[in-house]
Amino acid sequence: MFVASLTTSQTAIAKTSPNLVITSADVTNMRAAINVEGQFKTTFTANKAAIDQQMAEPITVPMPQDGGIAYQLTQDERYARYVRDMLLTYAELYPTLPLHPARKVGKQNPGKLFWQSLNEAVWLVYTSQAYDLILASLSSAEKNKIESGLFRPMVKFLSVDSPETFNKVHNHGTWTTAAVGMTGYVLAEPEWVEQALYGLDKSGKGGFLKQLDELFSPQGYYNEGPYYQRYALMPFVTFAKAIETNQPERKIFQYRNGIVLKAIDTTIQLSYNQLFFPINDAIKDKGIDTIELVNGVAIAYGLTGDKGLLDIAKQQKQILLTGDGLKVAQALDKKLAQPYDFKSVAFGDGNDGKQGALVIMRQNVAGEQAVLFKPAAQGLGHGHFDKLTWQFYDKGEEIVSDYGAARFLNVEAKYGGRYLPENKTWAKQTIAHNTVVVDQATHFNGDVEKGNANHPELIFFAKEQHVTISAAHIASVYDGVDLTRTIALVNLPSNSNSNSSSSSNLEQKQSFVIDVFQVTSAESHQYDLPVHYKGQLISTNFQLATQLTSLPVLGKENGYQHLWLKAQAQPDAGLSQITWLNENGRFYTHSAIMDGDSSVLFTQIGANDPLFNLRNENAFITRKSDAINHTFVSVLEPHGEYNPSKEFTVSAVSEVKKLSHQKINNIDVVELAVTSGQRYVLAFNAAKNFKGKQSNSFVFNGAKYRFNGRFKLFEINN
Amino acid sequence: MFVASLTTSQTAIAKTSPNLVITSADVTNMRAAINVEGQFKTTFTANKAAIDQQMAEPITVPMPQDGGIAYQLTQDERYARYVRDMLLTYAELYPTLPLHPARKVGKQNPGKLFWQSLNEAVWLVYTSQAYDLILASLSSAEKNKIESGLFRPMVKFLSVDSPETFNKVHNHGTWTTAAVGMTGYVLAEPEWVEQALYGLDKSGKGGFLKQLDELFSPQGYYNEGPYYQRYALMPFVTFAKAIETNQPERKIFQYRNGIVLKAIDTTIQLSYNQLFFPINDAIKDKGIDTIELVNGVAIAYGLTGDKGLLDIAKQQKQILLTGDGLKVAQALDKKLAQPYDFKSVAFGDGNDGKQGALVIMRQNVAGEQAVLFKPAAQGLGHGHFDKLTWQFYDKGEEIVSDYGAARFLNVEAKYGGRYLPENKTWAKQTIAHNTVVVDQATHFNGDVEKGNANHPELIFFAKEQHVTISAAHIASVYDGVDLTRTIALVNLPSNSNSNSSSSSNLEQKQSFVIDVFQVTSAESHQYDLPVHYKGQLISTNFQLATQLTSLPVLGKENGYQHLWLKAQAQPDAGLSQITWLNENGRFYTHSAIMDGDSSVLFTQIGANDPLFNLRNENAFITRKSDAINHTFVSVLEPHGEYNPSKEFTVSAVSEVKKLSHQKINNIDVVELAVTSGQRYVLAFNAAKNFKGKQSNSFVFNGAKYRFNGRFKLFEINN
Repeated sequence: MFVASLTTSQTAIAKTSPNLVITSADVTNMRAAINVEGQFKTTFTANKAAIDQQMAEPITVPMPQDGGIAYQLTQDERYARYVRDMLLTYAELYPTLPLHPARKVGKQNPGKLFWQSLNEAVWLVYTSQAYDLILASLSSAEKNKIESGLFRPMVKFLSVDSPETFNKVHNHGTWTTAAVGMTGYVLAEPEWVEQALYGLDKSGKGGFLKQLDELFSPQGYYNEGPYYQRYALMPFVTFAKAIETNQPERKIFQYRNGIVLKAIDTTIQLSYNQLFFPINDAIKDKGIDTIELVNGVAIAYGLTGDKGLLDIAKQQKQILLTGDGLKVAQALDKKLAQPYDFKSVAFGDGNDGKQGALVIMRQNVAGEQAVLFKPAAQGLGHGHFDKLTWQFYDKGEEIVSDYGAARFLNVEAKYGGRYLPENKTWAKQTIAHNTVVVDQATHFNGDVEKGNANHPELIFFAKEQHVTISAAHIASVYDGVDLTRTIALVNLPSNSNSNSSSSSNLEQKQSFVIDVFQVTSAESHQYDLPVHYKGQLISTNFQLATQLTSLPVLGKENGYQHLWLKAQAQPDAGLSQITWLNENGRFYTHSAIMDGDSSVLFTQIGANDPLFNLRNENAFITRKSDAINHTFVSVLEPHGEYNPSKEFTVSAVSEVKKLSHQKINNIDVVELAVTSGQRYVLAFNAAKNFKGKQSNSFVFNGAKYRFNGRFKLFEINN
Repeated sequence: MFVASLTTSQTAIAKTSPNLVITSADVTNMRAAINVEGQFKTTFTANKAAIDQQMAEPITVPMPQDGGIAYQLTQDERYARYVRDMLLTYAELYPTLPLHPARKVGKQNPGKLFWQSLNEAVWLVYTSQAYDLILASLSSAEKNKIESGLFRPMVKFLSVDSPETFNKVHNHGTWTTAAVGMTGYVLAEPEWVEQALYGLDKSGKGGFLKQLDELFSPQGYYNEGPYYQRYALMPFVTFAKAIETNQPERKIFQYRNGIVLKAIDTTIQLSYNQLFFPINDAIKDKGIDTIELVNGVAIAYGLTGDKGLLDIAKQQKQILLTGDGLKVAQALDKKLAQPYDFKSVAFGDGNDGKQGALVIMRQNVAGEQAVLFKPAAQGLGHGHFDKLTWQFYDKGEEIVSDYGAARFLNVEAKYGGRYLPENKTWAKQTIAHNTVVVDQATHFNGDVEKGNANHPELIFFAKEQHVTISAAHIASVYDGVDLTRTIALVNLPSNSNSNSSSSSNLEQKQSFVIDVFQVTSAESHQYDLPVHYKGQLISTNFQLATQLTSLPVLGKENGYQHLWLKAQAQPDAGLSQITWLNENGRFYTHSAIMDGDSSVLFTQIGANDPLFNLRNENAFITRKSDAINHTFVSVLEPHGEYNPSKEFTVSAVSEVKKLSHQKINNIDVVELAVTSGQRYVLAFNAAKNFKGKQSNSFVFNGAKYRFNGRFKLFEINN
């Protein structure tokens, strides 16, 4: 069947030019657009100025694609000649090249133009597009020389001469299949396209479609997390666009229920306030304005016309000079953007979507709360040992944070700009995250292979009007220790202070994140649960023993060697409260149930850091020693406002007055009482052997409660 | 003569109403404006909604002014009745009031409505305006009751019954004179106006004009610094506006060469990126959007029509519901704003402008460099012991910083929201600033009176195209030690990297701050010079001995007890370099001349801080021990860009290759060589006995140099 479809489509290949990402019809529209005021014209004018400048200089770093676009839009032959001359030079050069002298033997597959073949594939993805854009301007002799000297040998080098990379189901392989397939379209070599799609032997065991099958979950989540997801996205969307242009009958954007569009959308969903959630090895400054997503959003908008995507495009502040880019620019000029819909979702992990999940909970008001809960799989070598960790975001800022990667990208003085040694000794370690550490050891003992082989299980994810809740479980991170965590984002209409209404900026909602972390074992252990908080400590409702004149280090290994111990405390049994102030001007109080025996350690990152490689961030760690089973129960609550500019401070004190937790059979019952006298009971059933819409009932404080399904929030008016 | 002018103007008083800050003519324009789309209408609509809501509730916190404006604009009698009823209630109440029960005996002058009379004066400034706005709607009987029950006794209480406060030349006194004078205009009591202007005895020894004479320098600088300057501004501009409205013949805005407008403008000049320079006891979040300056800018724009003020008004994002506010709103709607001109200025301190100076140097490109250099007077009780300190700002951020005040304004949990104990033990101490500390003692031994009695001397301030430079001197902070500092902000066209032009965002200028701090004494001392830097340490060109597993405290008192010692070093003689990365994405390198004997201490604030009251900020301190004379010479250089979002890092390494300093007779010669091979020699003469356009010459490296005046920057092409 594949062969049949190939045959029918063969004649369609390369009839017109350009015809990869940009088509002749696009060009017609784009040429008109550069004469009309608007974002597209503005972008093009700036772009053209850059090319003109580049053309005036000797050819050093060839970026042929922009030249091709300038030729198509201005029809000025100078641009075509510039690209042509560049390609002719390469056509002379390429056949003479050995493997690159800077290649790393045995580590990466070497290229010829570049030290690794990955870079060569990337280069070809762009250069095949440039060639496509100037094709019409070339003589047969020129085409022949460029194709036989450059494109054909390069395709051969990347495909039949490098079968392992080509067939590899890995995002590096995607660049190679995209490069070969796109060049195949331009040179009218359907065989290359077929190999790109189905692997060298066209069996379907390798190739682009297999990559689409394996590298994303059914919802479009990429196993390594958002930072690498956006990186992986580029060749997928670019090649898919070229396939759609040349062979729409392949319906590539419908493949696997629209996996390419899902991957683009999921990348957006995995952001907060324009930045990607920084799980795993992530540079925290990376966000939705990344070029990979500029490309993805334009292509997705071109296909779907979804106005929510324009909201993202607007924030990207960057217009692509393509047909899709033109559609985006014109829609933005017409102010068609509508708010993008950020959702609460559990993204199933793994190619089957069943290897744990990455859970996002949101209160869908601009700039308001987001919870990230991570019962996700390890995510290969860039994954962190942070099973069941969480993060909290509010009013534009990180509140409970993840360190991300320890790296200063491209800063030579910081370990050559590579991942710092502290990425391994600190950032990947479990204590660097907001999850339980048993006996000061790291999950899976820091063994990546073991991590990849074992993933948490998502017990459930559910939501209703006021509550989004998820539970997950893992028993493989520590021998003989079972971890089950349930996190709920609760949003309630605020009852308190309804009479003092002077400041209209105040939130009308009251939010809580309820966290129940149950640890069970057959033996006695030490359990540490850190909260890495962002802000200035304001107060605690218990006495602190603060180190005044000398700071000791907390431990010797597994990340503990990087923590200064600033203060410790042993709160009385009952409600402990820790309040901090974030730079967003809001207060946050962490209220927890203490047993009188647990201690709280206040730490700062920075010990054993001879070259000041680490950021000096703060945490508090609740430590339960010599325990067999233990359940950490806490509530995080945003409140009030500190406004020194307008000179007012409101609600600097937590509303939480009481917190209790009971496990009644399989039902966890969390009771929360606030200052107004209002009481709430959140009941949930996180049992694994749970049946459908099961009915649950329990007796609490002498009253009988009943609910169907996994959970219910009861409001109790006294 | 004063009496004469009073007599002629007497008949003009209170003929029309309203006629204080808002006039009848204003009202006509404003009524028209609330029917036209624009910022004024938007503001009024929101404001009216708030009043309507307030009127629906029991009267608790009376804010009568807004009601008065709503009445004038809508002509809806309900608003006038609301204000009238409030005032009638007060008129019943006021005569029955004793001194306020919460007054603090012997500390502040008590009020009747409030615990201190200051608040009463503030209240009257606003309430007299509200009364003026509804006057036309009242019957004679109502007026009589309100005036005899409320305004007359309150004015008596604030003036003849409190002569000390009333006559005091202090910004608290300004509220009182403004309150009494403004009420005088509304009630047609010229005697009150006269007393407000010239003091109770009308001698001119007290009163508003004397306050204008004494509390500002001739350039409009207020002795306590920008944070308190903006606070002091309110009654000055409000009363001046009321005087101008009622008695334009007094030409109050021309008084003392336009001191009121100068004070408004200076308040703006004392900001960077919308925030006030945080010298002395300053809350760092306070900036140009403060209501005092919203008021000041509107009134100044109303008088001058200066379009640069609209630039500030735009950033204030707040429209005043007054005639001047309307002018601002309409001008903003018409997009008339032009860039406000931030200047390099030495603001002379003290009422004569000769008690030292606060020096601001800027490179006049939006968001670019500003240097604050502070050879200013102590600034009374809120002043810090920081003679000759400096700060540096670049690309929107603090780079070399000042701690400001240690205070969480109104946060009850933090010492009741008052100045924290650490304000005294840390924030005011010399080591908390970027200036020399001798023998670990604080300037003037921390004695405010001694500080107020001794101010530095500004030796010179000068500028030309590429250099702004200032020198200052003080010998009274430490017995027998003479401190002279010269700071220059140098901006040069960048010579380096002119061929690699790919990133168009890169700065085309190269900037340096050159700092020469000369300390002389007859005896041996320890000299510490801290640089409180903002950012992440990237690298040093010398070996660090970093504390890995235990952090010691640096000292026992004078602020040193709050510093953890994180690392120390003893750089070789020659050029030492310390590079950090600010969150604005730019690198900063501090290059200094080392003698092989000095050490560098890397510190973090936070020791002896049991309640986590301090921010954990970083510094490095260059320490020269057992020295009689010593000169600290350094260059601070912004460079490059760290852009992890777009994944590039450029120019992360300093361009400075050589730095030398010689004192040749009275001439300091600083030589700076950069990577490109370019060399610069900055020569300056900071002698006190300097004569006019004196000619200077010196021989350096065998060549003879000559310049006229205080300084010259020589460019040397090899």
